[in-house]
Amino acid sequence: MNVHGQHYRTIWLKKDNPGVVQIIDQRYLPHKFVIEDLTSVDEVATAIFEMHVRGAGLIGATAGYGMYIAALHAPRHNADAFSAALEADAEKLKATRPTAINLEWAVQRQLAAIEAAGSDIEAKIEAALQTAQIIADEDAEFCRRIGEHGLSLIEEISRRKQGEPVNILTHCNAGWLAFVDYGTATAPVYAAHDRGINVHVWVDETRPRNQGARLTAWELGQHGVPHTVIADNVGGHLMQHQMVDLVITGSDRTTYTGDVANKIGTYLKALAAYDNDVPFYVALPSSTIDWQMQDGVKEIPIEQRDATEVKYIAGLSDGEHTSVLLTPADSPAANYAFDVTPARLVSGLITERGICRATAAGVLELFPEKKLD
Amino acid sequence: MNVHGQHYRTIWLKKDNPGVVQIIDQRYLPHKFVIEDLTSVDEVATAIFEMHVRGAGLIGATAGYGMYIAALHAPRHNADAFSAALEADAEKLKATRPTAINLEWAVQRQLAAIEAAGSDIEAKIEAALQTAQIIADEDAEFCRRIGEHGLSLIEEISRRKQGEPVNILTHCNAGWLAFVDYGTATAPVYAAHDRGINVHVWVDETRPRNQGARLTAWELGQHGVPHTVIADNVGGHLMQHQMVDLVITGSDRTTYTGDVANKIGTYLKALAAYDNDVPFYVALPSSTIDWQMQDGVKEIPIEQRDATEVKYIAGLSDGEHTSVLLTPADSPAANYAFDVTPARLVSGLITERGICRATAAGVLELFPEKKLD
Repeated sequence: MNVHGQHYRTIWLKKDNPGVVQIIDQRYLPHKFVIEDLTSVDEVATAIFEMHVRGAGLIGATAGYGMYIAALHAPRHNADAFSAALEADAEKLKATRPTAINLEWAVQRQLAAIEAAGSDIEAKIEAALQTAQIIADEDAEFCRRIGEHGLSLIEEISRRKQGEPVNILTHCNAGWLAFVDYGTATAPVYAAHDRGINVHVWVDETRPRNQGARLTAWELGQHGVPHTVIADNVGGHLMQHQMVDLVITGSDRTTYTGDVANKIGTYLKALAAYDNDVPFYVALPSSTIDWQMQDGVKEIPIEQRDATEVKYIAGLSDGEHTSVLLTPADSPAANYAFDVTPARLVSGLITERGICRATAAGVLELFPEKKLD
Repeated sequence: MNVHGQHYRTIWLKKDNPGVVQIIDQRYLPHKFVIEDLTSVDEVATAIFEMHVRGAGLIGATAGYGMYIAALHAPRHNADAFSAALEADAEKLKATRPTAINLEWAVQRQLAAIEAAGSDIEAKIEAALQTAQIIADEDAEFCRRIGEHGLSLIEEISRRKQGEPVNILTHCNAGWLAFVDYGTATAPVYAAHDRGINVHVWVDETRPRNQGARLTAWELGQHGVPHTVIADNVGGHLMQHQMVDLVITGSDRTTYTGDVANKIGTYLKALAAYDNDVPFYVALPSSTIDWQMQDGVKEIPIEQRDATEVKYIAGLSDGEHTSVLLTPADSPAANYAFDVTPARLVSGLITERGICRATAAGVLELFPEKKLD
């Protein structure tokens, strides 16, 4: 998507130096547009762990490029040493964020591709490079298709409302900044807006890290999509008063039975949508589907992050990026980063292959190759 | 309750100068403890509108003292001029906050008391002074009784958990800072803590004004009650995982049918409590009961406040009270201050007369004098 009128992805290889991965350092958005160079696995791991990059798809793509960097720097004198270094770097990358399934998925895909490239080290490095690019390209293409499928939901509401604005609520940032391009929850919005459909987005600010207020608002604004930032507390009231036509969120991990792990607070919006008959859809590439787990609430590990993310918040003061203390200095805080929305509250899943019900039967109908014998 | 070991109410007449009302200016908490003098109705109205004071009971008590200040400064040469000035000041005070029913209730009670004091202006002023004190004293006493009644709920859970901590979630600040003393939602917590019952409070930070993170955390900390600050998004996850035993919130207006207007986001917590079989109680003095309205969601007016409260947030940076911009500068924001929780989601109401079901029958059983013929 565009930044100041120029097209960007969220991650790419540096022009003229393919040993350097470049990312948009999202910690400084919306106030500063900063590009960061990543040249080692440690830098890639830090970028994921400290959330210079974040979002299901982008974490996966970054891990993919991270494994390419790992291959590039692994010892070449001996196949065992090369493999051992790669395995160690794979563990390092996988340990950065426990909830996002794409991370593990991308790392495992790279290990398999590098293994399959045969015994020549150069061939292995080339395979890692190609796989990193393929992971990124697929991510963008899958998001584009999610947009096309989700568009049908918005078109239907727009027809029913006779062209009045379709009000869509979203939580966190499942926008293009969370992927390589287009986004998931935002992809149908961009597709609708680009076709001249009247849409308006309620943007949950998404405490404690404010990905909605900082990132979703910024990317919608850059693309010219009408939007309004709201506190996370507001969505229920809006739904009670028919001011939300559709909720679309992303997902960090969805069980094949339809339980959705997403940014903390998603479950509360799903409850409100259910209570007010507002359709609640989750947009996700199939790489975020967990084909093993059946009970998301019980089984999906939920990351706990540092209390300082709750007690302090950063913003712009006199042109400077400034962090302020919100609570009494000695009050403890807890920081659960995700919650799980049970499938019974989810109207449907929007995937790269189409829309399905949030049930094992619905998911397996779209992905029949995953059916167990 | 105590501040730095000294007992305070939230509002009082200045010692040696009963023409001056003093308040704790809550805008500076938890970082600074500031006492403000109010000497005119305009200053009182500003203190309410700009939320130097806030919370259902304290707004009512402040309006009560405001009407005393109005009587003190009204023209004394002529009964009609005195009444006209009082009426104008009453309108000014009532216009400051539309949702809190205590405001109108306190102003009307003052007008009636002043009217009933006869034709002598000095007697009217004395009546206004006494009524202001009575409103404040009743508020404190009713909160104390709410604490005693609510204590029974906590004791029962504590027995069931064999002394393990009773985890209570609260939203916003319905603490003593929102009243004259004790608070409503916090009164049972203080009563339990003071009796040695093991309690722990999950404090919703309560965006956009962070009354939980700033005020509830501060007053619990001053009283030594174990507590943890959480983003508003977290409560649903905690309830899914049996980490909340009881929710207690306050109310800005409750219909006699049991619908509860309270700080925006309360409805979302009530939905989560209902979905997870967690008891959800609302603590309120009967002055916040609306005896006219039947359908809170449709009828209770919801205040919209300025978008800057969403876009900017204040905190402490390098020892200075600093405001930072959270969103893109040109993104619009909406700021609905309250929502309404339907009675069907409320386990019960804790009032100064006892606990009742959130139904017209339940409420009227405790307040039989309100029964219509």
